[in-house]
Amino acid sequence: MIETNSQATHVIIFEPSGRTVQVGAGMSIIKAAREAGIHINASCGGSGVCGKCKVIVEKGAVEGGLSEKFSTQEKEGGYRQACTATISSDAVIRVPESSGLKSGGLGTAVPLRHRARMHVYDIEDLREQGIFVPPVTKICLDIPPPSAKDNMADAGRVIHLLSSQYNEHRVVFNLAVLRMLRKALREDDFRITVTCARPVNALGKSYLTNIQGGDWSHRSFGLAFDIGTTSVYGVLVDLNSGKVLARAGEYNSQLGYGEDVISRIIVAEKKEGLAKMQELVANTINSILERLLGMATPEGNGAKGSISREEITSITLAGNTTMTHLLLGLEPDNIRRAPYVPVTTFLPPIRATDLGINLPKSAVALVYPSISSYVGGDIVAGVMGSGMYRTELITLYIDIGTNAEIVVGNREWLVCAACSAGPAFEGGGITHGMRAALGAIEDFSLNPQTLEPMNITVGNKPPVGICGSGLLAVIATFFEQGVVERSGKFRRNLGTERIREGRSGHEYVLVWREEAGTEHDIVINEVDIENFIRAKAAIYAGITTLVEQVGLAITDIEQVILAGAFGSYIDLDSAMTVGLLPQVDAERVLYVGNGSLMGAWMSEMSNHIRQDVVEVVRKMTSFELSEMGYFQEQYIASHFLPHTDLSLFPRVAERLAEIHKGD
Amino acid sequence: MIETNSQATHVIIFEPSGRTVQVGAGMSIIKAAREAGIHINASCGGSGVCGKCKVIVEKGAVEGGLSEKFSTQEKEGGYRQACTATISSDAVIRVPESSGLKSGGLGTAVPLRHRARMHVYDIEDLREQGIFVPPVTKICLDIPPPSAKDNMADAGRVIHLLSSQYNEHRVVFNLAVLRMLRKALREDDFRITVTCARPVNALGKSYLTNIQGGDWSHRSFGLAFDIGTTSVYGVLVDLNSGKVLARAGEYNSQLGYGEDVISRIIVAEKKEGLAKMQELVANTINSILERLLGMATPEGNGAKGSISREEITSITLAGNTTMTHLLLGLEPDNIRRAPYVPVTTFLPPIRATDLGINLPKSAVALVYPSISSYVGGDIVAGVMGSGMYRTELITLYIDIGTNAEIVVGNREWLVCAACSAGPAFEGGGITHGMRAALGAIEDFSLNPQTLEPMNITVGNKPPVGICGSGLLAVIATFFEQGVVERSGKFRRNLGTERIREGRSGHEYVLVWREEAGTEHDIVINEVDIENFIRAKAAIYAGITTLVEQVGLAITDIEQVILAGAFGSYIDLDSAMTVGLLPQVDAERVLYVGNGSLMGAWMSEMSNHIRQDVVEVVRKMTSFELSEMGYFQEQYIASHFLPHTDLSLFPRVAERLAEIHKGD
Repeated sequence: MIETNSQATHVIIFEPSGRTVQVGAGMSIIKAAREAGIHINASCGGSGVCGKCKVIVEKGAVEGGLSEKFSTQEKEGGYRQACTATISSDAVIRVPESSGLKSGGLGTAVPLRHRARMHVYDIEDLREQGIFVPPVTKICLDIPPPSAKDNMADAGRVIHLLSSQYNEHRVVFNLAVLRMLRKALREDDFRITVTCARPVNALGKSYLTNIQGGDWSHRSFGLAFDIGTTSVYGVLVDLNSGKVLARAGEYNSQLGYGEDVISRIIVAEKKEGLAKMQELVANTINSILERLLGMATPEGNGAKGSISREEITSITLAGNTTMTHLLLGLEPDNIRRAPYVPVTTFLPPIRATDLGINLPKSAVALVYPSISSYVGGDIVAGVMGSGMYRTELITLYIDIGTNAEIVVGNREWLVCAACSAGPAFEGGGITHGMRAALGAIEDFSLNPQTLEPMNITVGNKPPVGICGSGLLAVIATFFEQGVVERSGKFRRNLGTERIREGRSGHEYVLVWREEAGTEHDIVINEVDIENFIRAKAAIYAGITTLVEQVGLAITDIEQVILAGAFGSYIDLDSAMTVGLLPQVDAERVLYVGNGSLMGAWMSEMSNHIRQDVVEVVRKMTSFELSEMGYFQEQYIASHFLPHTDLSLFPRVAERLAEIHKGD
Repeated sequence: MIETNSQATHVIIFEPSGRTVQVGAGMSIIKAAREAGIHINASCGGSGVCGKCKVIVEKGAVEGGLSEKFSTQEKEGGYRQACTATISSDAVIRVPESSGLKSGGLGTAVPLRHRARMHVYDIEDLREQGIFVPPVTKICLDIPPPSAKDNMADAGRVIHLLSSQYNEHRVVFNLAVLRMLRKALREDDFRITVTCARPVNALGKSYLTNIQGGDWSHRSFGLAFDIGTTSVYGVLVDLNSGKVLARAGEYNSQLGYGEDVISRIIVAEKKEGLAKMQELVANTINSILERLLGMATPEGNGAKGSISREEITSITLAGNTTMTHLLLGLEPDNIRRAPYVPVTTFLPPIRATDLGINLPKSAVALVYPSISSYVGGDIVAGVMGSGMYRTELITLYIDIGTNAEIVVGNREWLVCAACSAGPAFEGGGITHGMRAALGAIEDFSLNPQTLEPMNITVGNKPPVGICGSGLLAVIATFFEQGVVERSGKFRRNLGTERIREGRSGHEYVLVWREEAGTEHDIVINEVDIENFIRAKAAIYAGITTLVEQVGLAITDIEQVILAGAFGSYIDLDSAMTVGLLPQVDAERVLYVGNGSLMGAWMSEMSNHIRQDVVEVVRKMTSFELSEMGYFQEQYIASHFLPHTDLSLFPRVAERLAEIHKGD
């Protein structure tokens, strides 16, 4: 279960530096310090074992953080363990020299965290543009009753009124609706509510998918889902107010059959495998749907009680190409085989029940189109959800995972590609790599004087491994502090026992066994760094190649939009330091959150946006990087920190020069 | 079970008149004589009881017709009973004076039978016009296989080729087809056959309803059905050659629940009644379908064996509005209640399986649109099938049953109405009326000298009653011979014991009990004649009223097209004599047979015609006669034989004058 919570924020001032940071209530002091660019020695990741992270709370309230090791005097003096104390009000916190850096060494060494600004689309945006018209809408009609002078058929009366009053000139009845029509018309004196599914093409037909006697136009609800390889998220929306009534997420039940799309495809190729995969994802959707229905209460419509399943008229779904295939029961076999041909990229509207989704027969499922086998509907949805397709700025949209999907362009043109970064960013192929689960080192800083670490773990648990964002922080920090060379090798003889020779070249011990939540030292070695460099090189080369295809240079990129889970944790300075992202001003980097879900939500709310999707997909040119010599060249050129060509990273070059000026 | 057989024909010469007629092998001599306008005394209808119909076969061969009553000399001299002898070669047959008319009385008294010329549309007509393009067609495609340089999705490849080579620019895949697409493409090296269901509107989309690996374009079959209240007829056609491979008909299984549409509607209004009616008609269709599949062998396609159900891509159905409602499971309740509002007149394409029709899931059912509650898809199909919608002649199209449906117009305009003629033409409300079943008197002539009858029965069986065409023949003959007055009353004192006073005014004994196949005399009385006059008056008034609506007179009608079972038996002279049809030259009268089936067949074969149907329906203005004062006036004016205004029937006036000049 994964949920988003909005929280109160508090202002924290760290002394003696005076650096200030605004953080959410419940954040640990150590994380708040990291946000502020303050180093606190802390190698045990919050288990309170190492006892190195003592701080003094001078003003304000914190919870927890007490240790048996503290003297009574220390306790009364406001001493707390930074790793276990959480913030519950505005506060002033002093970091003693013993826990942090010696005076004078502060500042340049530990950069502030720059995370991308969250980009949020709002229903008001749609309303202002006059495009808040859902693809499936309920319309209340007062039909003139038949008479001897006007005995047009029931269906004709409805069509006539829709044409003359609602500008719906091409309306088709579903058979099921025709079967209900006579009774519905006469249930409330020829006042009916029809559910009208509009066409994706202005020339197309509108389908009446449901009919009810009386006025039910105020009771119209929709769903938007992101079908991720790992997680599935859904929102339930009121199609009249535009309000999100509930949101929920769960792990994709297919996870038991492998973590990545390739393993899912292999399962689907087996006998009954496709049906199994289809059923599993449908089950996940249904489970989320139940929770959404359980959570949601309608607002401002005067009706008591909850929302009925029968009142849901439509569901918009976005997922990568493999997930889309599995959801629809399409054979994904060729997605994993050159030349990587999916069954389809475009999809007609489908009955939700045909996908095993537990909705009424009348509910329409609208599925986001893909571009290719590895640039899926989730990316298209992200391009829509981020507003990239409407900006004039030359924008890089990037979703980093095992595969990185890259889109470059603006309102005029769009090019895209997927590149296989390997699993390094998800902790795969790294000696002590792991997913961003409890105990994963997710952030890091280094005491430049002692080279002692500050490990920040997910959930403040004893460290058990390192996840993608932690790896990025560790390598960027090593590189900036001169611990690692541009080639990715450790500098020798740095005078710390944490760097030693291991089985895979030199390694740095992030956590000693006795402070770890596992039975061994947690290290990062030169092979890990090499794997990381390969991954970031593939992505950077991909971006460079795409940009080159349209006759531009990577330095022409004016805006970066990050999507996906990794994008939310990524530190922008780190990413540019190692050469994962092109160097752009931090304020020109946006984080779109779950871009796929946002795009799905937007086209669930606006048929105009749904129509734009078709245009965007037509416009988007896809490149197969592995087939391009230029990509190979760029890949090799990117095989350094940050790049062979330092002029592409002027800020890094400057900082390196400063750090190494004493060398 | 009802079937159509084509037969050899023979030329028969009747002596002494020398009148010649060409008839089918197996026809009885008495029927052949009637065709030739020869009267033979015959009151027992073929049972051989009355022994009055002796004839002499002078040349040629007949079968049967021998009687125990004949002497050896008679037998050897070629004597036969005309009612039981059937024709098996060209022949010369002499009618002795004892069996027929006395010399000199021949000719004027017994008119030749004028039946409407059969109008047959042919596949060549469609081919010549370049419109032999079925709505659902199989197309074989050689798809360029994907490569690294061109890895468009499978579906995109198909759509691209259909657009570039087949002018199909708006193609949509059904989900089921997408699910088969990958395998199908790779089954025969990217050669596939798609089944393409074209839109009824030029702007619409084509749906791919099926896909097969390899070239199966030569195996494409369709069905056309007429869903009648009494009988259901179907044909199986090869959609490539246009050939009709099989045809079959059965009584509508709903018959057990009432003979007319009103009783069916009443049943459908009961609990589960509609589902029952739906199931029954689907069962009938399925039963005919089985027989069609059993009969049909494909021609000229090199494939051995029969046609598989899976090879049927589409079915076009036409029926009256009530039958259409019951077939589709639409509530027919308001069809029988003023202001007579059907649920719908237009219908979208439907999955045949959704109607319970035993066809593959991919098969499309195309249902003919109706005009109103009482001018149904069968009439629209007839207007199409008869070619009426393309002629320049001002045409009356009429289908006579319990309700007579009337269409007047040409290629420019069309008006229509239904009028309730009552069941007289189907034998209902007539003392000894019956359907055209075995033993029904279906034709008749009168010996003008003796007023003895010549009763011709269905199947040459002993008479048990009189059916619609028989009633028409009897009343027209009575009127022409002066036996019945223009008011419909028998003339008194005609000197025959066959006319007597009965319980319902005067009556004529068609068959004495001892010669009948039933336990009583078979009579026709003045109330029967009155009922008949009411029925024909309603129809004639309907025609007059419709014509008046467009500013014309009934005498402007240039062509008459008869449809329905009654139309095939109707004698044109009789119909014009009694004032049922307006007076038009016989060669301007066409019989369209089962116009509904022909129309269904035509639009099954030609999407152009299917598109024309929509135009025709839009063009056709429907009038509710019962609401119109003019119709009431016309109805009263038509309440005579043939009409109060004899000038409308100049030929009848002339003949009456001749017959009665001795009065």
